[in-house]
Amino acid sequence: MTTEDTTGKNVLIVSAHPERRSLNAALAALAAGELGAAGHRVRTSDLYAMKWKAGVDADDFPAHDPADRLDVMAASERATAGGALTADVTAEQEKLLWADAVILQFPLWWFGVPALLKGWIDRVFTAGFGYGTTGRWPHYGDGRLAGRRALVSVTIGAGAPSFSARGIHGSLHDVLFPLQHGLFFYTGMEVLEPFAVYDAAGLGEADFPRVAGDYRARLRGLFGEEPLPYRRLGDGDYTRQLELREDFALPENAGPGVHLRR
Amino acid sequence: MTTEDTTGKNVLIVSAHPERRSLNAALAALAAGELGAAGHRVRTSDLYAMKWKAGVDADDFPAHDPADRLDVMAASERATAGGALTADVTAEQEKLLWADAVILQFPLWWFGVPALLKGWIDRVFTAGFGYGTTGRWPHYGDGRLAGRRALVSVTIGAGAPSFSARGIHGSLHDVLFPLQHGLFFYTGMEVLEPFAVYDAAGLGEADFPRVAGDYRARLRGLFGEEPLPYRRLGDGDYTRQLELREDFALPENAGPGVHLRR
Repeated sequence: MTTEDTTGKNVLIVSAHPERRSLNAALAALAAGELGAAGHRVRTSDLYAMKWKAGVDADDFPAHDPADRLDVMAASERATAGGALTADVTAEQEKLLWADAVILQFPLWWFGVPALLKGWIDRVFTAGFGYGTTGRWPHYGDGRLAGRRALVSVTIGAGAPSFSARGIHGSLHDVLFPLQHGLFFYTGMEVLEPFAVYDAAGLGEADFPRVAGDYRARLRGLFGEEPLPYRRLGDGDYTRQLELREDFALPENAGPGVHLRR
Repeated sequence: MTTEDTTGKNVLIVSAHPERRSLNAALAALAAGELGAAGHRVRTSDLYAMKWKAGVDADDFPAHDPADRLDVMAASERATAGGALTADVTAEQEKLLWADAVILQFPLWWFGVPALLKGWIDRVFTAGFGYGTTGRWPHYGDGRLAGRRALVSVTIGAGAPSFSARGIHGSLHDVLFPLQHGLFFYTGMEVLEPFAVYDAAGLGEADFPRVAGDYRARLRGLFGEEPLPYRRLGDGDYTRQLELREDFALPENAGPGVHLRR
């Protein structure tokens, strides 16, 4: 239950699948339709349709002198501070700042996001926007994107047990930790439980109503659900070296789950 | 100690950094030089220099009818079986089959590989090469790349404590698990402890001899070091649903470390 105003919000849907008639495209369209019908404003970044440039390189920093050695972090920081990023990156940053919630829609390829989506992350979350070059930059629970919510909607070829706590691929939380905690929470966002469609390789048209129903239920909670209780850097659980304090017990084979308050 | 023949091997070095005068480029060149001097044969894939195409799309499957809906997995499997992959992908698969060891050299960007390297993984490890579409395909400890070794050499802006077992970013093993276990071990490779250069953002020319010395020591062990003891699927530790058997204790907050035999 929440007393927050959860109507009339701004939602950015970023999707990455090469086929317009794919399950991923259908889920992205479903989200846009449902959220629009609920009174929210929706913008989309369909990375394949946009022919999104994936690789960070010198072309991303038009003010960079090609004769000079490219220090990516320094060039990124200068271009961000000087308003000298490329138009495609600036447009995505503006969408992120506009958004109250961001949904990433993608197929899990080799246990991560497709390259085009990684390229969206690498290029859009610049130094001075997504991260700072000193420890003073607010991060992990605070940052430029604080106050926004993040939802991963992912399709997975394999079955749910193989991504459970005992699953051979690692738990889905652990596999997505670099994204959920390392990108979203790092930049200050409130991160929701991922929405996963398992056994996606074997799904047919007849399965879509069930999947759509499951997704609609999650979308209804987009602004009401409790986010994952990651430990905020500001809450004192970490040392200055960014290690979990010694007075927290660390069980054998402890993994990313230790960064949740439970 | 090993009695294996560790001379005259084939090594593929795949690197992904946009600057030819970067630390990453220097480490890739150092590895090529050292391994060559030790009597090994070295081939390289410098993904930025190759202008590697990052996104999997219909162009990857020249035999695919553009009017038909693109099912990536099915198209990938057909193209692989029919020898109908694109020349760039085929060349990389041949390099992988030629290699006795593969080194990935990259900067850690947003807790993962740069988009171009993810695109190399997404496009080269096709269905029928990197994975199969049925459970009968050998994986996790066996597969098309069995008998080969894999070494990640990664530069990281942050400090080592922040990637330790208590580190806020997750342990480096956990952050790299999707790559080390999900790609390399999945395809049958023997996976080495990663070589990581921390605090890379603050390194200068004066620091390179120390870093180079550390890397040379690891390169000398490329064919002799004990690989990480991941549990092989064939060893009976997993159920048919691909979950670690219930008789293995699962501590609270257990993470990817449970997939190591210790």
